Amino acid sequence: MKLSLLAQAISLEFSGMDQEVTSFATLKEATSSQIAFFVNPKLLGDLQNTKAGVVILPAAFLEHLPSSSQALISDNPYLSMAYASAFFAKKPFDTSSPATICEKSSIGTHVVIGSGSVVEEGVQIMPNVTIGANVSIGKNVVIYPNVVIYDGCVIGEGCIIQAGTVIGSDGFGYAHTKLGEHIKIYHTGNVILEENVEVGANTTIDKAVFGSTIIRKGTKIDNLVQIGHNCELGQYCIIVAQSGLAGSSKLGRNVVMGGQSATAGHLEIGDFATIAARGGVSKSIEGGKTYGGFPLTLQSEWLKTHAKIAKFFTKN
Amino acid sequence: MKLSLLAQAISLEFSGMDQEVTSFATLKEATSSQIAFFVNPKLLGDLQNTKAGVVILPAAFLEHLPSSSQALISDNPYLSMAYASAFFAKKPFDTSSPATICEKSSIGTHVVIGSGSVVEEGVQIMPNVTIGANVSIGKNVVIYPNVVIYDGCVIGEGCIIQAGTVIGSDGFGYAHTKLGEHIKIYHTGNVILEENVEVGANTTIDKAVFGSTIIRKGTKIDNLVQIGHNCELGQYCIIVAQSGLAGSSKLGRNVVMGGQSATAGHLEIGDFATIAARGGVSKSIEGGKTYGGFPLTLQSEWLKTHAKIAKFFTKN
Amino acid sequence: MKLSLLAQAISLEFSGMDQEVTSFATLKEATSSQIAFFVNPKLLGDLQNTKAGVVILPAAFLEHLPSSSQALISDNPYLSMAYASAFFAKKPFDTSSPATICEKSSIGTHVVIGSGSVVEEGVQIMPNVTIGANVSIGKNVVIYPNVVIYDGCVIGEGCIIQAGTVIGSDGFGYAHTKLGEHIKIYHTGNVILEENVEVGANTTIDKAVFGSTIIRKGTKIDNLVQIGHNCELGQYCIIVAQSGLAGSSKLGRNVVMGGQSATAGHLEIGDFATIAARGGVSKSIEGGKTYGGFPLTLQSEWLKTHAKIAKFFTKN
Repeated sequence: MKLSLLAQAISLEFSGMDQEVTSFATLKEATSSQIAFFVNPKLLGDLQNTKAGVVILPAAFLEHLPSSSQALISDNPYLSMAYASAFFAKKPFDTSSPATICEKSSIGTHVVIGSGSVVEEGVQIMPNVTIGANVSIGKNVVIYPNVVIYDGCVIGEGCIIQAGTVIGSDGFGYAHTKLGEHIKIYHTGNVILEENVEVGANTTIDKAVFGSTIIRKGTKIDNLVQIGHNCELGQYCIIVAQSGLAGSSKLGRNVVMGGQSATAGHLEIGDFATIAARGGVSKSIEGGKTYGGFPLTLQSEWLKTHAKIAKFFTKN
Repeated sequence: MKLSLLAQAISLEFSGMDQEVTSFATLKEATSSQIAFFVNPKLLGDLQNTKAGVVILPAAFLEHLPSSSQALISDNPYLSMAYASAFFAKKPFDTSSPATICEKSSIGTHVVIGSGSVVEEGVQIMPNVTIGANVSIGKNVVIYPNVVIYDGCVIGEGCIIQAGTVIGSDGFGYAHTKLGEHIKIYHTGNVILEENVEVGANTTIDKAVFGSTIIRKGTKIDNLVQIGHNCELGQYCIIVAQSGLAGSSKLGRNVVMGGQSATAGHLEIGDFATIAARGGVSKSIEGGKTYGGFPLTLQSEWLKTHAKIAKFFTKN
Repeated sequence: MKLSLLAQAISLEFSGMDQEVTSFATLKEATSSQIAFFVNPKLLGDLQNTKAGVVILPAAFLEHLPSSSQALISDNPYLSMAYASAFFAKKPFDTSSPATICEKSSIGTHVVIGSGSVVEEGVQIMPNVTIGANVSIGKNVVIYPNVVIYDGCVIGEGCIIQAGTVIGSDGFGYAHTKLGEHIKIYHTGNVILEENVEVGANTTIDKAVFGSTIIRKGTKIDNLVQIGHNCELGQYCIIVAQSGLAGSSKLGRNVVMGGQSATAGHLEIGDFATIAARGGVSKSIEGGKTYGGFPLTLQSEWLKTHAKIAKFFTKN
């Protein structure tokens, strides 16, 4: 899309040299044909070093923009980005061209596989599964009935996906107008499951805004779990039923999340940490310990405190 | 159905003038061909003013029934209504007659659309979606794969429904016998999504008993959310993943429900209220404030109290 | 499968008399053609009385094995069982041979019903439902669109299953290697719904490891509920939305679980117990009472304690 047309469509002034723009990316990752946006002063270094062809930013930060990038000035770059994102959204689940399906795979009835997707040897896809375009399904993957996998996702060798699970749904991301409306940020990222990941039934894993939501090898996820956009789960994690990981949660290896536990997003959990059932993680925590409660504490403290509360308020 | 036959079928005596009855409605909304029931003494005014053709009620309240209504006397009108509701239930997802589908829409493979449903211009319905009878799908709606929409629901212009979501499932409503059995109340209402509502993946929104569960324009609902029968959500609400709204919750505009939060049902939340993650709303609250905890309090109080608890019980 | 080959496949020594083995079972239930494993010293009696053809056990307990059973010695019998379970897993959702479908039933479009399944009179199965092999669907059952029922499950007369629900998904069970990998235990059990059970939308009920996950007659389950492997729910229970029952929870009759409540698994709840919304049951409790909170207490205590906490920490 022409930058001049995009600028016009989202009501931003543009007087630079016109160019073709293809998509959004972060300041760090954007290339000369991509657009980034700047809204968080903590990322000033990223702005100063960006290779993005175009950056949407407030006028006050214009002086920090490298000469290789063009500016689109906006009072609310996040909102401008949301409006612009709609123009880069592709029509989802396109089936206009064929998929490549290994003949040594087993595809059930009423299965739909989108344009350009690749299904490798030994895969079993059961009935009524819907797979989007440009999805990659590795060797010996087993996909149970009525699963949905969105465009561009990558399912590693040996993964098992139980029935009804949705992989790659749009993340829950909106910018907000002064009138209180929520403007959808069209997500262009994907979900990557590395090898031997298992996902339970009716679980949801959202695609990344840009880049990937990543589940590393050998991680096992139970039923009705929610994994937000841009999460990254290390190897061999265990995520028990009805847990919810908010966007951009980063888990180390062998992290255990008990049933109905949750994270608040944009935080890190160290390797070999265990979160007891119902634990609510609201900030980054170090590995190797067992946590519980909400607000979160060490599980041993939580148990002690609750015993004390019961005792104290029985007497008082 | 003939009233005399219905009365016989649910073992109630009837000696009035026979008439055709078509369905149930509330005392307030029932017309002369409908049946209402009276069980809550607080609604005595509704009984006295009802236009219902028939009312199921205990003998003690017979004197309050308008002369325009006939009585079916029952010791347990709610249970009688439950038994009777089965007789008005239509066979769901009927496909015996055609739907009206705009040719400027895109319908995926293995999509089923029930009798009398209408799909407007610019709609995209992806594979393996099942839509019931008499559903209305407004302009430019996008429905992702494997979504299910029950009979009679209304999806407003520009709505987006992510994969695996169920709209219009039967509400969780039963009457109870003395033996402890639960008798299903067949729900005849629907769900209405106004324009530009987005619903995440594997979410469930139950239809109303009678009338409508309503989600007003611009409201955004995340994944794995439960919205009970007869809820009403105002404009531009944000309902984060794994929240649960019990039946007949009424939210104002721009209400935010954090992840895994919940309401107890039959309560109101004022405009611009925010419920922090895990907050449990058990009674009506005024708008414009941020609440948290369970039992619910102001979020600032919740934080303070928990800091004090941690301090106090470390020392004591 | 030949025992000698199985032993070789899972790297255990075997020098006994070769025999055909067909599947796994518990020490108590295994027959002469089945394999059991011994890992819990509390079950020593079961070991001493087992009728299993083969038992995987540590060398130290060999002396307790009946002479009718052969031994496979393993330092980690649970892990060995997990590796072995893969060899007994059948290809799921087989459709190579026909199902038996009563002509007085109504089967929607794009419905798949697996080999050997039986659908009785008066059943209505709506579009895009997927049913595995050897499933039994009793009289007058109603199955809404996009439901998935795994192999071998039994759906009793008059059951209603709302859209998107998954019945019989693999339980979340793994053995763990020293390197922290999780080895899948292939579940060979099933789910049994007795008559007149209703299950809400997008709920998940896992099959048993061996044997059955059982929901007794007249129990009603709401939307987005998780029921783990080997649970047993008594008659006429009410399980409200987003509740989670961990594996091997055993509920008596007429137990009520409020919204977002949970159990920790391997525990019993007595008849007519009520768990308030959000209650977290972490150990067995007697029936006839109302519980709440987490850690769980009597609901009346929970309310009192929280009132006292609010008062005390306002002043202190």
